[in-house]
Amino acid sequence: MLYDFSEKVASCLDSKEISKFIISEAMRLIKADNISVMLLNNDSDAFEVITHSGKETYSQDIMRLQEGVAVSVMDAGKAKIINNIKSDSNYASKIDDLISVMFAPLKVKDRSIGVVKLGSRSQLEYAAEDLKIFAALASQAAVAIENARLYENLKDAFITTVHTLAETIEKRDPYTGGHTRRVTDYCLAIGRMIGLSDTDIHRLELAAVLHDIGKIGIRDNVLLKDGRLTDEEFEEIKKHTIYGEEILDHIKHFKNVITGVKYHHERYDGRGYPDGVKGEDIDITARIIAIADTFDAMTTDRPYRKGLSLEAAFEELKRCSGTQFDPELVNAFLKAFENKPV
Amino acid sequence: MLYDFSEKVASCLDSKEISKFIISEAMRLIKADNISVMLLNNDSDAFEVITHSGKETYSQDIMRLQEGVAVSVMDAGKAKIINNIKSDSNYASKIDDLISVMFAPLKVKDRSIGVVKLGSRSQLEYAAEDLKIFAALASQAAVAIENARLYENLKDAFITTVHTLAETIEKRDPYTGGHTRRVTDYCLAIGRMIGLSDTDIHRLELAAVLHDIGKIGIRDNVLLKDGRLTDEEFEEIKKHTIYGEEILDHIKHFKNVITGVKYHHERYDGRGYPDGVKGEDIDITARIIAIADTFDAMTTDRPYRKGLSLEAAFEELKRCSGTQFDPELVNAFLKAFENKPV
Repeated sequence: MLYDFSEKVASCLDSKEISKFIISEAMRLIKADNISVMLLNNDSDAFEVITHSGKETYSQDIMRLQEGVAVSVMDAGKAKIINNIKSDSNYASKIDDLISVMFAPLKVKDRSIGVVKLGSRSQLEYAAEDLKIFAALASQAAVAIENARLYENLKDAFITTVHTLAETIEKRDPYTGGHTRRVTDYCLAIGRMIGLSDTDIHRLELAAVLHDIGKIGIRDNVLLKDGRLTDEEFEEIKKHTIYGEEILDHIKHFKNVITGVKYHHERYDGRGYPDGVKGEDIDITARIIAIADTFDAMTTDRPYRKGLSLEAAFEELKRCSGTQFDPELVNAFLKAFENKPV
Repeated sequence: MLYDFSEKVASCLDSKEISKFIISEAMRLIKADNISVMLLNNDSDAFEVITHSGKETYSQDIMRLQEGVAVSVMDAGKAKIINNIKSDSNYASKIDDLISVMFAPLKVKDRSIGVVKLGSRSQLEYAAEDLKIFAALASQAAVAIENARLYENLKDAFITTVHTLAETIEKRDPYTGGHTRRVTDYCLAIGRMIGLSDTDIHRLELAAVLHDIGKIGIRDNVLLKDGRLTDEEFEEIKKHTIYGEEILDHIKHFKNVITGVKYHHERYDGRGYPDGVKGEDIDITARIIAIADTFDAMTTDRPYRKGLSLEAAFEELKRCSGTQFDPELVNAFLKAFENKPV
């Protein structure tokens, strides 16, 4: 049993999924009405219920009281049974409506990262054997959860870093947020609307974040010019798509992201740049970014003009649907906005 | 037994460590002279022996022959025993000097990522029970190795991305490599010489890579100026240390990296910038970067002057030891260079 379990939990790098799995296994093996997985948040020093069975919501009061018990189990580092919590003066009827409960620490090496609680609303006699199974499940889950958290943290650090550096580059100024973030949000809204897979959503997000990275290669006097660009200067600006490719070419992880960045100024009718690629030959992430990028450019103020209203920008997207933009993706964008303003 | 094993392997996110552990467990449980863990490299489509017991080195020939067997085990997805390989026409004495062998696939969900081979130089009768234990070990290890690889890949993507983006920013030009990479190498050499922990080495590497990130905030006409800077322009340049802090302040993962970046122009005698911090009050990563950064600036050509020779630069570091630089760290740098030219 445990062997099978450990293989299943270990093959997943999502702490919520792992917690759900431990709950269903415990429910299968031990009689219980309620199981919850609580992790200690190192930043806030408080417990968070990351998954629990049943429909209970956890009030602040219950959480506070549970924490006392959870802390003591974590500190002791040992699972425990309390078969009649009402008669135990330490807990006296304080923990929701459960009567018989078991707690097991989520231990990784010598450190506890949280607690699992399991309990029944009617009085039961949990035995040493139940506790042993429960503790073993918790022990396996702890390691899997910890690995998943390390992975999640690194993933988060990665994406935040790419975001920050890309926005820094774009702004050529201390971080202010703005265009990149909005373009990314619009892109993700379109991507979700058309049902892209998780992998493609990740690829789209990176391409959206990095779409203007090549602007680092454009000199201030062109990039930051206040007035209208000469033809020559515009040719210079166009190169940011190719510079983007050159930069990302050095990062293996971004191999699949390059076409999204390089082709975000291609047009559906083939009259875009840098290569004049056409229609569905343009990578779908690039076609999505083209819409999001133009929409954001239209709706925000620039030094030399006010931004359009949302309605006027929608009309403009519709007008250019089929020539500049992929019509299906324009529709998806309009629909995403209708459903829930991005 | 397996329960204990799975907990141990799962708690580690390093595929080599996990492989070593599976080898020692298999050696403990099953009679064998030789065990090797081979992973399929998806890029090259070839197997790599990532860990093996004993001192054998693997020749190209042996690898090629092993691959035939490994591929068939992977495709079948099932562990197998060959008790007398010399009498088996499929393998006929082709696999190094082992006689009785077992193979087990490293399976993750429905996909095999490699093979574990175990064998003896004398003829044995491996039984179904041995194969079962061996396959179970491999199965547990497979999941742990796959998770570790995902983690390693992400970590690699992260550090490469930070490197590339930082170099891109520094150069304001399509990627050419250079200063950032060398400064980072010098820093790591010093860090290792003084025995920094892995965590501190990671922090130092990130700070070194990002030390000039704030230059993004400096305009071309100052940053790229060919001749000597005016006092005013120099005050502008100095701000890159503070801009660096402002940028990194947005990334939680870089909290510990900020002081290294912000203070890499502080001097040991307190006469540096931006804050005039002194001696050991300057974060050690910043004190290390100061040496590496100056050394690289001295030894490379600039548009307006040739770089110093290594010897002249070493002399200059010594001359400024105790005033501009931490003397102990200067010594560590000189020693690192003596041991093995960086």
